[in-house]
Amino acid sequence: MKPIYMDHHATTPLDPAVLQQIMPYLTNHFGNPSSTTHEYGRQARRAVDRAREQVAAFIGAQNSDEIVFTSGATEADNLALKGIALHPSRGKGHLLTLATEHKAILDTVEKLKKQGFSVDFIRIDRDGWMDLDHLQELIRSDTLLISVQAANSEIGTLQPIAEIGKIARERGVPFHTDAVQALGRVPIDVVRDSVDLLSISAHKMYGPKGVGALYVRKGVRLASQIDGGGHERGMRSGTLNVAGIVGLGAACEMAAAEMPAESERLRILRDYLIERIENELDYTTLNGHRVERLPNNANFSFAFVEGESLLLACRDVALSSGSACTSASLQSSYVLKAIGIADSLAHCSIRFGLGKSNTREHVDFVVDLLKKHVVRLREMSPLYEMAKEGIDIDQFNWGEHSHDEH
Amino acid sequence: MKPIYMDHHATTPLDPAVLQQIMPYLTNHFGNPSSTTHEYGRQARRAVDRAREQVAAFIGAQNSDEIVFTSGATEADNLALKGIALHPSRGKGHLLTLATEHKAILDTVEKLKKQGFSVDFIRIDRDGWMDLDHLQELIRSDTLLISVQAANSEIGTLQPIAEIGKIARERGVPFHTDAVQALGRVPIDVVRDSVDLLSISAHKMYGPKGVGALYVRKGVRLASQIDGGGHERGMRSGTLNVAGIVGLGAACEMAAAEMPAESERLRILRDYLIERIENELDYTTLNGHRVERLPNNANFSFAFVEGESLLLACRDVALSSGSACTSASLQSSYVLKAIGIADSLAHCSIRFGLGKSNTREHVDFVVDLLKKHVVRLREMSPLYEMAKEGIDIDQFNWGEHSHDEH
Repeated sequence: MKPIYMDHHATTPLDPAVLQQIMPYLTNHFGNPSSTTHEYGRQARRAVDRAREQVAAFIGAQNSDEIVFTSGATEADNLALKGIALHPSRGKGHLLTLATEHKAILDTVEKLKKQGFSVDFIRIDRDGWMDLDHLQELIRSDTLLISVQAANSEIGTLQPIAEIGKIARERGVPFHTDAVQALGRVPIDVVRDSVDLLSISAHKMYGPKGVGALYVRKGVRLASQIDGGGHERGMRSGTLNVAGIVGLGAACEMAAAEMPAESERLRILRDYLIERIENELDYTTLNGHRVERLPNNANFSFAFVEGESLLLACRDVALSSGSACTSASLQSSYVLKAIGIADSLAHCSIRFGLGKSNTREHVDFVVDLLKKHVVRLREMSPLYEMAKEGIDIDQFNWGEHSHDEH
Repeated sequence: MKPIYMDHHATTPLDPAVLQQIMPYLTNHFGNPSSTTHEYGRQARRAVDRAREQVAAFIGAQNSDEIVFTSGATEADNLALKGIALHPSRGKGHLLTLATEHKAILDTVEKLKKQGFSVDFIRIDRDGWMDLDHLQELIRSDTLLISVQAANSEIGTLQPIAEIGKIARERGVPFHTDAVQALGRVPIDVVRDSVDLLSISAHKMYGPKGVGALYVRKGVRLASQIDGGGHERGMRSGTLNVAGIVGLGAACEMAAAEMPAESERLRILRDYLIERIENELDYTTLNGHRVERLPNNANFSFAFVEGESLLLACRDVALSSGSACTSASLQSSYVLKAIGIADSLAHCSIRFGLGKSNTREHVDFVVDLLKKHVVRLREMSPLYEMAKEGIDIDQFNWGEHSHDEH
């Protein structure tokens, strides 16, 4: 039997209702939406148009042509940042972001730095929550873009998007948010929140892999990153992935309908998970913000336990130690490091990503399993014995988090 | 009833056998291949590995890790050209290509020109066939890349890939080919043909839209164009489109098995189509090379007839006047222009893209339909009346093709 899936930040299963809407475009309706000389192409074009409206409605965009379809959020993030920075109307300027952003942002700003752009990271506290005053201080006359994620994929911390948007608009700086984890979990409205660019991924919200979108507010000019044919108002060329786009549209419509009830259900499940772990296991740390947090996320460090051993022992539940994009490497999470968690503790961390399929029974199952194995693994740890006996173990680098005013 | 589909250069239907292989990855096997801490992720990873081997085997690549998955051929073309040109180890240099390339090549070299690269177009004759001696002459010490399509999507002309590869290898210049139209129709082997970079699209060979690949020969260094997480050996970041990739692999395996018989069948159909049109309609011109031609392509100019009117009249068959990427515009084909066809004649051109579903009955149907409507539409053309009466109509710009030693 397959493990219980509890890694919904990495990816989500395709919802059967979304698949049902995709199927015609994987069978009879196979036209290329650019082939408008015949009905096959026009039929595909209509499906793309409809999906564009569904995505726009979901995020509160005023015009569906503000939606640019991409191959996913990584491409959307790249298009947002490079599209702003490398547009011929702009010079080499300044970018603002967070050290806890997705690698699609961090690797891209790193590349832009090598090309002569300057980058500053807005201060975050130990919960990963950003400092709005510091943002105000950092904005310069040559600041080209503020890019702040709506929610962190590892520790679940939500950022004050509307407040950032307000500051950005006042200061005349475009504002991009990678909303991949937040969409479908918390309400986002690009007009209300003054967002200029917003990255979307289908597969994080029960849609298919290989498709995403970038919301580009009217008037924001981007340099295209993939050229050839001028699709998507010249911002992104290439034959449109019709089935994927239909799936993204359907996923958005479904998320809008289900979100209020489902997010509340997940929040209750998550709080139950946190409560049981904190009540029934000692030496645990909840990483991320306790309140401003994705309803489906928990992230715990279990001191004195090696994370990989714990994941292996708990393999009846599919969990991860961090983001999918870095979990293959043996490095500890850069997100936990950025909020000041010591390496030793970061190595003992597990991310819980709840989703539609998860139940209270799943939470009980995983907590019982964790308890069993955390206790067993700690029995092999001399440090745990010392801690229990009251010996000061901070000298061994444990619990640096609690002292570090990062 | 839907029209008969005869636009297989624009896109092809997803083969039901390919869809069958995709389905598990749209349902139960939904893992993120980067989530290797659990079985969901590892299962997805194995599927991607298998597809990588299928694609590699299909094009004769020696190692499956020479395959970089992309969102399609447009992205693959962009990665090949920009990846070579913008790699930090290389300076601003020189690129060689054809004026009849896909827009993904032409728009990309145009952009690189603006960034200080120089571009030369290798001479082509009126059949679109490139001049190997001219290629030899054009290569300079700073030539960074030769990019020549394996087959043209409009006029079907095949290029002498192996000869280009030989020259490129001798002169030490990397060689890229956009093989989108050729793959699955004519044999291509990257080792035999000395190809360094090759672009693949799934949806042109009965696979899904939204997925493609770039073959990158070992040792060829590319600058990544989409950053974030270092997937695909650092050359292309972003969550892998598992279902799409499985579909591409399956399409490659299927094409390898079916190609010899199917290409021969299509060649016979195509020759029958060409023969009937040439025998039964006057003032027609076959565009493209008569011999070195895709087995499934025909492209005819029907003088004295407006192409759009003819397409509309023949709407029981899905045809196009050119490539999908430009057919929405009212401009006449840049490919026909590049081989020296006058605008007036280019406007009367129709592309026939035969595929698996097409039969001899379809060919008879389309030829009968064309005859009926060409004759009817010509009755409204004073130029046609003059031509029939032996009046010199070249003064009206007809038939420029036959005089222009382009």
